[in-house]
Amino acid sequence: MVSPHNTNGNGPTPPKSVAHVRYELVTLGDELLLGLTANGHLTFIGAQLGRHGALLTRNVTITDEAEAIAAQFRESWARADVVITTGGLGPTCDDRTREAIAAELNQKLVRDPAIVEHIANRFAAFGRKMTDNNLKQADRFERGEVLANANGTAPGLWVEQGGKILIMLPGPPNELQPMFTNQVVPRLAARGLLSEGEAYVQIRTAGVGESLLETRLQPIFDRFGDALSVAFCAHTGAVDCRVSSPSGKLLHPQLEEIAAECAKLLGEDFVCYGHDTLAKVCANLLRAREKKIAVAETATGGQLAQAFTEVGGACKFFAGGVVCCTNDTKTQLLDVPECLLLQHSAVSEEAAVAMATGAAETLGAEFAIAVTGFAGETTGPGGNPVGTMFIGLFSPGGVWAKKLSYPGPRSTVKVRAVNAALDWLRRELLRLESGATITDRRSNVMR
Amino acid sequence: MVSPHNTNGNGPTPPKSVAHVRYELVTLGDELLLGLTANGHLTFIGAQLGRHGALLTRNVTITDEAEAIAAQFRESWARADVVITTGGLGPTCDDRTREAIAAELNQKLVRDPAIVEHIANRFAAFGRKMTDNNLKQADRFERGEVLANANGTAPGLWVEQGGKILIMLPGPPNELQPMFTNQVVPRLAARGLLSEGEAYVQIRTAGVGESLLETRLQPIFDRFGDALSVAFCAHTGAVDCRVSSPSGKLLHPQLEEIAAECAKLLGEDFVCYGHDTLAKVCANLLRAREKKIAVAETATGGQLAQAFTEVGGACKFFAGGVVCCTNDTKTQLLDVPECLLLQHSAVSEEAAVAMATGAAETLGAEFAIAVTGFAGETTGPGGNPVGTMFIGLFSPGGVWAKKLSYPGPRSTVKVRAVNAALDWLRRELLRLESGATITDRRSNVMR
Repeated sequence: MVSPHNTNGNGPTPPKSVAHVRYELVTLGDELLLGLTANGHLTFIGAQLGRHGALLTRNVTITDEAEAIAAQFRESWARADVVITTGGLGPTCDDRTREAIAAELNQKLVRDPAIVEHIANRFAAFGRKMTDNNLKQADRFERGEVLANANGTAPGLWVEQGGKILIMLPGPPNELQPMFTNQVVPRLAARGLLSEGEAYVQIRTAGVGESLLETRLQPIFDRFGDALSVAFCAHTGAVDCRVSSPSGKLLHPQLEEIAAECAKLLGEDFVCYGHDTLAKVCANLLRAREKKIAVAETATGGQLAQAFTEVGGACKFFAGGVVCCTNDTKTQLLDVPECLLLQHSAVSEEAAVAMATGAAETLGAEFAIAVTGFAGETTGPGGNPVGTMFIGLFSPGGVWAKKLSYPGPRSTVKVRAVNAALDWLRRELLRLESGATITDRRSNVMR
Repeated sequence: MVSPHNTNGNGPTPPKSVAHVRYELVTLGDELLLGLTANGHLTFIGAQLGRHGALLTRNVTITDEAEAIAAQFRESWARADVVITTGGLGPTCDDRTREAIAAELNQKLVRDPAIVEHIANRFAAFGRKMTDNNLKQADRFERGEVLANANGTAPGLWVEQGGKILIMLPGPPNELQPMFTNQVVPRLAARGLLSEGEAYVQIRTAGVGESLLETRLQPIFDRFGDALSVAFCAHTGAVDCRVSSPSGKLLHPQLEEIAAECAKLLGEDFVCYGHDTLAKVCANLLRAREKKIAVAETATGGQLAQAFTEVGGACKFFAGGVVCCTNDTKTQLLDVPECLLLQHSAVSEEAAVAMATGAAETLGAEFAIAVTGFAGETTGPGGNPVGTMFIGLFSPGGVWAKKLSYPGPRSTVKVRAVNAALDWLRRELLRLESGATITDRRSNVMR
């Protein structure tokens, strides 16, 4: 057993802070190099390590040829404290990852009867025939352990050797992800190579740019000097701020207090702690008030409805949505008067207001948001350039619209419009909760 | 100027086939290693190289510290023929990528007056003030060229030295992607390091598994022996087959003939040549007949509507969509009889048929598809397990429903259901075109 605190002759590892453990990730697969699949393992494992105080120092993606794997493993193993590999554990004859790495480690592969049984049981359960190839997946390192796979045949493999750790994980995300969270993280934490709990407290904000956010929060941060580490990350329409203390001078409860102080100072611009989406935060506010939301959209084409339906148990707060492409649909399904569309055009504040009202009434919801605009490549009629979006908000307190303009490609414009709509709804829900007057809320429109 | 065909003393490069040129991609940025952003550059550049006959051999992601960059560049430069870097060209003082790499190449950085002017003009156009930092972006290698950036301040950099090529690209995708397609690909092709045109012909299929597809097409492939290279790639519900001739024995027109023969043999299972989505293929068929499609969805929550609205000019063929969460919505917006939902449940073939019919009639479309089911984590009522989806199809020829069951996580189930719905619509459009009888089409339901 290797731990950064032991000092046996087999490879003494001096104690080091989690932030200084060198993690390397080797992702295998031609489908990544050919651009057929996004490298989701990097995103997932990078984020998981970050949440537990470690920074992935390198990710290498190579083809799954045995020679390339051996050469890359040798390099990473020499440099890193922990090497994680993904993929290459499949049953086909070209999956020679185990063999290539075993040779580098001077280890033998042994067939594990418990894994053989697990694989046989899975095949039986799905009524499929097992071939000899499949049994290759039952091979593990002679001096190594096995990470059980609840969702597939290939188990993960765990080796501690020469003061270093090797973790080999199967490629399918639904197999890798629970294995990483439930088995790898606790094992690494037990050896002092990851923080057991969350290493940082994250404040999610909306409606403030990164530099303004920094300026507003700096006076709080200044009080803690170099005991506090702060990192900002801007998404489309939202900025996250993470406070941590890599030196360990500030404990987690103190980080939580600092985050709470930031949240209080930010007021409505504070969205939540952690990683919830804007839609999830709105959903929680709606559920707490037992209210429902409906949506009507043109330019975002279903993306707003999807933001809500991605939240679990959406039926409890989401009344439904209408995706319109034509004026007929708006008139037919949302009772938007035809003359209004003719006079003001379908892309206007008036149309956004009428669509939001229509969605609330037709779908029987207390709240509704509507998005109409030009996200496409060409300039819209009426001189509104691409990136011009109108958002309508219907609430028990009234109905408003606002115009927004976004630069950037079509996909970015859509995400920004969806986030702006969700953020406006969130602020309205908060203001209703606080008993703000309609005049207060109207000022919200001006943002 | 370096080309694989020259043999000057400065670094002779023997002629080699495009498939053997060693390309390495170095992606810089902590946001990738922290899992905050997906590595889209790998996906994009990998696919682009693949389309032009080259295989990216390695992608390394590292932090943007100058030392790490220098060490990684040294390694990649020693190993590869072409090294591409992305990111690290920003104006902030911690972007020391240029300096680190210039030192490795024994080159000086020089300030380029043309870039200074370009940057100044961009700042003026956006009414922003330029700082000294921004001028750092006007630095290029003394023995190197510049790739103009139409969408940002930092130009790309191009160096040919010692028989190798270095290409440094800016991080924002909307700057990098047109630069790569319009400047990098033609330059590499001119030097014989990429194929000028598409290196393969891709046949996109749906409704056939990978191994069955291979079995059906093998007799065609066998006639061409090792002159032909075939690769399959399975997506959720679709399989692509790429035919190429890395040896150059078969020319592009011959590859097109082979692909056409495959397409003919596959009949309806053939979707298209190239990379069009199923929604795009349906859109083309609808536009050609001047017909419209409407959608009604529960479990896919807006994803089906989005598949259509992602296609440019969606208003021409997409009548609109309804996303329902409650029975009320189905009754209210789609005229689905309440008693039907009570008797058969909202997740049933009957409900799918009623929803498709309602969508077509309410939205005024000739065709409609409906999806209802359980994509979520828990088993639905009525004993239908998670992953059970019902698809309804309304067409001028009739209205049908079918039941599908998918294993896998929620997000996969949704994609599969959307693809199955689109594929069914596609087949129906083809059969109507060919004048097939209703009986023929009914057999379609059984698939």
